[in-house]
Amino acid sequence: MTKPAGNVMGVEALTEFLAEAFPQVCDDFTVEEVAPMRLRVRLNVAERHLRPGGTVSGPSMFSLADVAVYLVILSMIGPKALAVTTNCSMDFMRKPAAATDLIAETRLLKLGRVLAVGDVLIYSDGLEAPVARATMTYSIPPK
Amino acid sequence: MTKPAGNVMGVEALTEFLAEAFPQVCDDFTVEEVAPMRLRVRLNVAERHLRPGGTVSGPSMFSLADVAVYLVILSMIGPKALAVTTNCSMDFMRKPAAATDLIAETRLLKLGRVLAVGDVLIYSDGLEAPVARATMTYSIPPK
Amino acid sequence: MTKPAGNVMGVEALTEFLAEAFPQVCDDFTVEEVAPMRLRVRLNVAERHLRPGGTVSGPSMFSLADVAVYLVILSMIGPKALAVTTNCSMDFMRKPAAATDLIAETRLLKLGRVLAVGDVLIYSDGLEAPVARATMTYSIPPK
Amino acid sequence: MTKPAGNVMGVEALTEFLAEAFPQVCDDFTVEEVAPMRLRVRLNVAERHLRPGGTVSGPSMFSLADVAVYLVILSMIGPKALAVTTNCSMDFMRKPAAATDLIAETRLLKLGRVLAVGDVLIYSDGLEAPVARATMTYSIPPK
Repeated sequence: MTKPAGNVMGVEALTEFLAEAFPQVCDDFTVEEVAPMRLRVRLNVAERHLRPGGTVSGPSMFSLADVAVYLVILSMIGPKALAVTTNCSMDFMRKPAAATDLIAETRLLKLGRVLAVGDVLIYSDGLEAPVARATMTYSIPPK
Repeated sequence: MTKPAGNVMGVEALTEFLAEAFPQVCDDFTVEEVAPMRLRVRLNVAERHLRPGGTVSGPSMFSLADVAVYLVILSMIGPKALAVTTNCSMDFMRKPAAATDLIAETRLLKLGRVLAVGDVLIYSDGLEAPVARATMTYSIPPK
Repeated sequence: MTKPAGNVMGVEALTEFLAEAFPQVCDDFTVEEVAPMRLRVRLNVAERHLRPGGTVSGPSMFSLADVAVYLVILSMIGPKALAVTTNCSMDFMRKPAAATDLIAETRLLKLGRVLAVGDVLIYSDGLEAPVARATMTYSIPPK
Repeated sequence: MTKPAGNVMGVEALTEFLAEAFPQVCDDFTVEEVAPMRLRVRLNVAERHLRPGGTVSGPSMFSLADVAVYLVILSMIGPKALAVTTNCSMDFMRKPAAATDLIAETRLLKLGRVLAVGDVLIYSDGLEAPVARATMTYSIPPK
C-alpha cells in the first residue's frame, strides 16, 4: 500500500466550506485539528442538543459523528465531493457529562475510489473514557 | 417461548407520554398505529429536518428510528421504563423524497429482561422502497 | 421506482453455482425457496457448527447470513457477479436450540448499481422467535 | 471515572483457558500480548480459513474479532464469566494478503456491570492498512 497523501484542506478551508455548504448547522461545530487521515471536531453544545436532565441527545451525537467523517474525507480529497452516508454503526457507552461540549476524535480507515470508512470516538470534553463510538461509511460518487 | 403479551399502551397513551416527557420534540412525531411488538410512527417533516436541496437529514432519520423503537418498547412494558439506547446500526439506501413525511414501520424483535432489540424500515410517505433501515438496542434498567 | 425484475436464478441454479464456486462449504447450506428479492436458505447443522453445549456458534451464524445475502443478490443479477461483503451488523438475540438447523429468511432491501443491502432473520428450525438478525452490504464490482 | 484495574489474566492464563474451554478452535489463535483494556491475538491461518484464491474468509475474520473481544474481557474480569456476544458490526475494507496470518489489535472501550464493548482492527501480518474493523458487544450475566 502506498502511504496516504497529505491533507488538501486544513482547519480554515474546512471551516469555510462548512459555513457555505451547511449554514444551518455550521455553528454547531468547530474543526479543531486536521492531520493526514485524522481530524478532531467539537460539538459546541447548546440548549437544542440537550435532553431533559442536560445530557446530549443521541441525534446530536449521530450528527457529530457524521460531520466528523465527512470532514476527514474532504480534508483528503477536497471540497468537490458529493459524498453521502450509506452506513452507520454506533455504540452509546456512557452518559455524556451535563451541558458539556463533545469532542470527536476521527480516523479515516479506508479511502477507496468508491467507499470511505471512518471511525469516531466521542468524548465529553475533559473526561477520559469515551461516551460513544461510531463508524460511518460514505459512498463517493464518480466524477 | 411464550407469546408476547398484548400492548399496555396504545396510540393515545404513547402520544400523551411523548408530550409530557419530550415536549421539545413531540411535535415532530405522530404515533399512527400500535400492535403487539409492532408500531408505526410518522416524522412530520418540517424545515428543520431538511438538508439543502430538500432531502431529510441523517440525524432526523436517526431520531425517527430511535423514537420508534423506544415507543414500541414502552407500548409493551409501560411508561415507567428509563430505557436508554446502547447500540444503533443504520443503512441509508435511497434519497428520501423532497419535503415528504417519513414513516417508520417498527418491529420489536426481542424484549428481554435487560435488552430490547427493534428493527425499523423507514419509508418516504407514498413510496414503495424503503429509504433506510435501522436496528436499535435499548438497555432496560432493573427496577 | 421501477419494480425489481424477477429472479434470473432459481433454487437449482443457485445450488449448482454454490457447489462449483464454494465446494468446501456447499454441503453446509440448502437453498429452500427463491422469490423476487427474497430467499430462504438452511444451515444443515453438523458437529463443526457447534459450541460446547450444542449451541450453534457465532461464526456459523455469520456464515449463514453472509451466504444468504450473497445468494439473494445472485438470484436477481445472475452468477457472473464478483460481489464482496463490505459491511455487516448482527444482533444475537436468543440462544439457538441445541443441534437444530438454522433457517435464514432473507430480503434484499436495495439492489443498486454499486451496493446491495440485504436483511436476514435467523430462526432455529421450528421455533417462532428469531435467534439473530443480520444486515449485510455487498459491493458489486463494475463489469 | 476510576481507572480500570490491571489485568487479572495474562497471556499464559488466557491460553490455558482457551485450550480447556474451546479445544476445537484453540489452535486457531495465539494470544500475543495483554495489557490493561488491550490485547493482541493472532489467527494462525490454515487451509480451513481460506476462500478459493487464498484470501481469508469472512467467517474466519468474524471468529477472530469475536475471540479477541472475549479474551480482552476475560483478561480484566477473570475466567469465571459466561459472557455472550449480543451485537457485532464489521467493515471489510481490504482483501487480506493470501495465506497470511491475521492480527487483531483489540481495545476494550467499555467494561460495565452488564455490557462490555470492544473494538478490533484486523491486519494482515506485515501490512500497514487494516483489512477489517469490528465492534463486539458482550452481555455479562450477573453472578
